Amino acid sequence: MTDQYVRFFDTTLRDGEQSPGASLTSAEKLEIARALARLGVDVIEAGFPAASPDDFHGVQRIAQDVGISKGKDYTTPSICGLARALRSDIDTAWEAIKPAEKPCIHTFLATSVVHMEYKLGLTPEEVVDQVGEMVAYARSLCADVEFSPEDAARSDPEFLYQVLEVAIKAGATTLNIPDTVGYATPEEFNTLIAGIIANTPGINDVVLSVHCHDDLGLASANTLAGIRAGARQVEVTMNGIGERAGNTSLEEIAMALYTRQSIYQLETGIDTTQISRVSKLVSNYTGIPIQPNKAIVGENAFAHEAGIHQDGMLKHNNTYEIMRPETVGLRQSRLILGKHSGRHALQVRLGEIGYSLEQEELSDIFKSFKVLADKKKTITDADLEALVEDQVYRAEEIFSLDGLQVSCGTMGLPTATVRLCDRDGEIHIQACVGTGPVDAAFKAVDLIVQVSNTLLEFSINAVTEGIDAIGEVTVRLEPKNGSIPERTSPQSGLTHKRSFGGYGADTDIIVACVKAYLSGLNKLLNAREYTQASELGVKRPEKIKL
Amino acid sequence: MTDQYVRFFDTTLRDGEQSPGASLTSAEKLEIARALARLGVDVIEAGFPAASPDDFHGVQRIAQDVGISKGKDYTTPSICGLARALRSDIDTAWEAIKPAEKPCIHTFLATSVVHMEYKLGLTPEEVVDQVGEMVAYARSLCADVEFSPEDAARSDPEFLYQVLEVAIKAGATTLNIPDTVGYATPEEFNTLIAGIIANTPGINDVVLSVHCHDDLGLASANTLAGIRAGARQVEVTMNGIGERAGNTSLEEIAMALYTRQSIYQLETGIDTTQISRVSKLVSNYTGIPIQPNKAIVGENAFAHEAGIHQDGMLKHNNTYEIMRPETVGLRQSRLILGKHSGRHALQVRLGEIGYSLEQEELSDIFKSFKVLADKKKTITDADLEALVEDQVYRAEEIFSLDGLQVSCGTMGLPTATVRLCDRDGEIHIQACVGTGPVDAAFKAVDLIVQVSNTLLEFSINAVTEGIDAIGEVTVRLEPKNGSIPERTSPQSGLTHKRSFGGYGADTDIIVACVKAYLSGLNKLLNAREYTQASELGVKRPEKIKL
Repeated sequence: MTDQYVRFFDTTLRDGEQSPGASLTSAEKLEIARALARLGVDVIEAGFPAASPDDFHGVQRIAQDVGISKGKDYTTPSICGLARALRSDIDTAWEAIKPAEKPCIHTFLATSVVHMEYKLGLTPEEVVDQVGEMVAYARSLCADVEFSPEDAARSDPEFLYQVLEVAIKAGATTLNIPDTVGYATPEEFNTLIAGIIANTPGINDVVLSVHCHDDLGLASANTLAGIRAGARQVEVTMNGIGERAGNTSLEEIAMALYTRQSIYQLETGIDTTQISRVSKLVSNYTGIPIQPNKAIVGENAFAHEAGIHQDGMLKHNNTYEIMRPETVGLRQSRLILGKHSGRHALQVRLGEIGYSLEQEELSDIFKSFKVLADKKKTITDADLEALVEDQVYRAEEIFSLDGLQVSCGTMGLPTATVRLCDRDGEIHIQACVGTGPVDAAFKAVDLIVQVSNTLLEFSINAVTEGIDAIGEVTVRLEPKNGSIPERTSPQSGLTHKRSFGGYGADTDIIVACVKAYLSGLNKLLNAREYTQASELGVKRPEKIKL
Repeated sequence: MTDQYVRFFDTTLRDGEQSPGASLTSAEKLEIARALARLGVDVIEAGFPAASPDDFHGVQRIAQDVGISKGKDYTTPSICGLARALRSDIDTAWEAIKPAEKPCIHTFLATSVVHMEYKLGLTPEEVVDQVGEMVAYARSLCADVEFSPEDAARSDPEFLYQVLEVAIKAGATTLNIPDTVGYATPEEFNTLIAGIIANTPGINDVVLSVHCHDDLGLASANTLAGIRAGARQVEVTMNGIGERAGNTSLEEIAMALYTRQSIYQLETGIDTTQISRVSKLVSNYTGIPIQPNKAIVGENAFAHEAGIHQDGMLKHNNTYEIMRPETVGLRQSRLILGKHSGRHALQVRLGEIGYSLEQEELSDIFKSFKVLADKKKTITDADLEALVEDQVYRAEEIFSLDGLQVSCGTMGLPTATVRLCDRDGEIHIQACVGTGPVDAAFKAVDLIVQVSNTLLEFSINAVTEGIDAIGEVTVRLEPKNGSIPERTSPQSGLTHKRSFGGYGADTDIIVACVKAYLSGLNKLLNAREYTQASELGVKRPEKIKL
């Protein structure tokens, strides 16, 4: 690794997954981690293992699979687990990540006055002691330890130098400087990083990292300002997801360094042609949409996507284009499948767009593919992605949809009949009227499933061109009673209700709605079962903010 | 106006409206302009009057209404019209804006080598001459003239100083520096603006403005870098909409200057408490969604929106919060209406959330309100906004929905029957089967309306909490045959097909879908009629890029 190499530390699965309603299943996390590895990130922060058995299991699966090199055609990333500066958190993180070839423990403690005083209730001296002790403990388990002084951008710089020196002496290999609340301006952040480099003994022996939030729309600029000051790791998420306004976008930093190579003169391990695919995967699994005017990955980000005169374009394409769509993986040749395409063609195409499925999963997808091909003349990559997501990566189904019948319109009362199958194979049927077909169908589902909840969000998108498109539905639910414990932030002391995202796809959008609703309910029911029978007995401290 | 005042030049209705599918009706443009004036922007770029009679009319209506002060409780903004550096464009712009109390002509010509050579086919000398001549001509009509050297960020600085000096001598009152392709870094842009101030004779007698694009995610940082170098006008759009990755976000600059007042020490005329409302209005009318992690206006942008313990929050709310939601107009007291609310209560509430409706419009809304209140227990502000948008601000209806009947589900063939009423009051009925209920209904509509088109986008959102929510549907259509002329960019020479957005709202989402589809088709049919009977006989040069 040269001085000109910038490491990409991806925290989509940790800080990104803390977005409201993003809660991913372990299978979804694993698939995203595989995609991130293919994209070429250097470190994957896979989660916060001490949060719950579910989170522990998710990180461990990634360490065992993506963290191991055998047979892969890309560099194996480091697998990182987050831990508060507590012995028990560090132990749990280590257990989860140790199957990986390059495990890393990331621990943190706040250093700003407001956080130390109101949140931690610790004196600066106590913070310094705890950092030294816990970094050393983490280092006794794991050769690679990252330490973050939480809320660094609002901390006293002199105190920060002192804490960072202690962390280095205790064995930290990476120091990460977060602007936890997204408050800094680029000039301030540049000055902060330059000051740390100038004033922290031993800083040249460790990797210096930056971690920014986008509350004022400055996360990318602050991250680049940190790099210019000498930082050589960036902490980012795909699509910039994360709590509040989110984290620095992976794609913006990767493409700024690529497009303005002459200015920054830095290298990265990112294969930019994977960006579009990973972006879509993350959006679909988290249910967090990407606005069309989002830089790099928004649907409109590239100027001349459709209806252009190719020769005019070729003649002077840099008049309005500073990046080529091919560079981020758009406009790759698309083999269109149809009703006569066989199982092999399907498998080949799924492989090309990045899905490595088990034989059984492939059989399920092939069946759905045939059903869809009967309804729709051409099957595009987007259709395939919707099929895979709908079929393979869903939570364990406690209730599944067995039949739906709906009538609606302006001329009568919207009515739905729902037939569900439970885990024991028992069939339940209910009919309801509602304000519309979705309301009617959801009420019928509620009569069967009996989980009181509030629908927080509900959106439908057609994934493919044309009126006969597959509709994709995402929902977000919040349980109404106390069956699922609220999330309490160990920092702020605030509690939040948990919410659950659901996803469904079908050419009939009402069917897609019911599938999405059931998928959200199944996640909620799974979480309730985890809560009721916690295997490791660890407390669930949910929200971590860096 | 002091040296510390930063003018906000809003181009949501010009550069923002050039986003694919954003095409707004004149009534929608007027309503957005009113909201922008209430928000406190200094200049509203209302459109490009030479583009079409439709665009001319839209700008003129804004000049006649928002541009006049009588009886308003906010400062009247300047109303600006865009014109290429051509006598005919300048004449048309002047005709459109001259009813305003503070009219402004904005003209531009490219100054980068790639644009002058490949696009304009002009020598640098010819560019200098044309700038001097056309700025002087604009100034002979209008006391306030803004000039932009297109693609300034990629222009030779020495040449730029020369062109700007000529523009000042010819009478320009504002010089605007665009990073047309979103290529600059903050350091480069700061250097560019500082260089212009240091090297352009007469620059201190005019307003210096910056106009950035977000292709690398740096628009806000570049704009702030320009301000720090001495620029005192920012060109922005609400929600950062615009072509490709869009323009600088109004809300990000306003809130960065507000939140970091101690650093920037600048004043603006923006009433930040209007931000949320205007943001939602623009998103609804353009059909361009806002991602939940968008800074300031995203649904998740504020940390602790729901389910929090208020006293914990009050005790140390700046632990994680650098802005209060109230500052951008969130969490204002919401008077919830219900089925017993009268016409007066409705009118008062509509006024409070910013709608000033004619009596006839109010009567229509009240009828819909009563219908909705029968279906839904409580009516929130979001419901009211959806009602207003659905009822009042739609294109002239060439076909309207008179009845719809749908059956679908997993157990039969999705079937829809549609009854439409045309302008002459004639009733048309058709039934169709489809891959789903929306497909079936749209096919039935197509049998009646007979306009061949492709559905480019299709999305549904529930606007209010709970399953009985109103569903809002937005669609984007592209005509298939040549009945609508393609848009040819005068700069790049590229042609694009036009597309048309449609919006519909109903508690029955299939009804909302059909309303949205009809609204898009009506816009398309209106545009075809405009094309066939152009009143002013001006050519339609569509895409302007600054």
